[in-house]
Amino acid sequence: MNFHVMTLFPELIEKGMNTGVLYRAMDRGILSLSTYNIRDYVSNPHKRVDDYTYGGGAGMLMQAEYVYLTYQDIMSRIGSDKKVRVIYTTPQGSVFDQAKAEELSKEEELIFLCGHYEGIDERVLEEIVTDYLSIGDYILTGGELASLVMMDAVSRLIPGVLNNDESAMTESFSDGLLEYPQYTRPEEWHGKKVPEVLLSGHHANVEKWRLEQSIERTRQRRPDLYEKWKAENDT
Amino acid sequence: MNFHVMTLFPELIEKGMNTGVLYRAMDRGILSLSTYNIRDYVSNPHKRVDDYTYGGGAGMLMQAEYVYLTYQDIMSRIGSDKKVRVIYTTPQGSVFDQAKAEELSKEEELIFLCGHYEGIDERVLEEIVTDYLSIGDYILTGGELASLVMMDAVSRLIPGVLNNDESAMTESFSDGLLEYPQYTRPEEWHGKKVPEVLLSGHHANVEKWRLEQSIERTRQRRPDLYEKWKAENDT
Repeated sequence: MNFHVMTLFPELIEKGMNTGVLYRAMDRGILSLSTYNIRDYVSNPHKRVDDYTYGGGAGMLMQAEYVYLTYQDIMSRIGSDKKVRVIYTTPQGSVFDQAKAEELSKEEELIFLCGHYEGIDERVLEEIVTDYLSIGDYILTGGELASLVMMDAVSRLIPGVLNNDESAMTESFSDGLLEYPQYTRPEEWHGKKVPEVLLSGHHANVEKWRLEQSIERTRQRRPDLYEKWKAENDT
Repeated sequence: MNFHVMTLFPELIEKGMNTGVLYRAMDRGILSLSTYNIRDYVSNPHKRVDDYTYGGGAGMLMQAEYVYLTYQDIMSRIGSDKKVRVIYTTPQGSVFDQAKAEELSKEEELIFLCGHYEGIDERVLEEIVTDYLSIGDYILTGGELASLVMMDAVSRLIPGVLNNDESAMTESFSDGLLEYPQYTRPEEWHGKKVPEVLLSGHHANVEKWRLEQSIERTRQRRPDLYEKWKAENDT
């Protein structure tokens, strides 16, 4: 998987991907990351990427042309005539979730476009963007963290990125329930003991306890997921 | 607002907050950020923070004690006897949204706990965590990006962090609709013209056009938000 990121803050993107699991995957050549500073494609003397919004309103907008030139450069480097998905991270997108992460993890190349200021001129979005995606219903100061979140969620699904110890994490959401509580050594900490059943070695009882805990936790913290799960399992 | 972050990757947190708007706010003393490396509180010779999970299953768990020692150190530095909220970023949490960001922006101190590996021993979570929050229904390799996302969303709501040009961004979600398309110079780009109405200077028509666009976009991209908005406005 090759990630290409169009941004005004390439250093943030590089640092954000350069940690732990993803660093190792890049080191082994399973992932690659290229960043492109949109400001490098600006031809005006003050290197301004933004301008006022037609129709009024506070807030500046990124101009279409510089974004487009950045995109063209990326496409010429990819050097392929195949269609590459271009993801614009925006609260005005459909919601990114685990199913979308799985879908994107099948691609070979992904381009991310990170907005700043009030947004980007609509015309260049129409021309290049294939996916408008939002990581959640909140506003961020820019699109960089949203791109990092998506790249992280996508990366860990690519075969070879996680090792066996880590891949267990995949299980959340896969059955529509939140994960059960977990415990490690010591058996007693601050007067709190590890639940007896987990020490019993009785595999079926452990599974039963974990399922009950998952159901109860989902009911409490995510009634929306609980209702969906119940509808699907109440047969 | 003082942010305190318990993490295994303090550098990622520092880089992620050290950009653009937030950097300027920290420079002016409106925000502060302190990171605490949980590994620094580990007493065993190999500096291992994790151990196997009781009851079996792949994946390692962060041990309770080291997280607790980190927390104690933060609380002694805050040096106050008031209650400080401790946010654990986890897919097993309730969903972080703009309303939660607004609520958290009223606090003076916030502590974030970033998980890694399969998670953290439940007992220390019970002891110190006040808020279990998820930024969305997807799995990340760790809690750092989720903490950065929340800190970013919270920070920009703190008075003085954004300047006037930027604060317009606040409007998404405030009326339950996605934002309308926006345009900046030039008037024509790649054969595409800025919609006539935005050049008209007729304020009421501009508003009307923007509202229609918002409604249509919300209907297409976020049917869930559209239904909610319609129910509230169909009177």
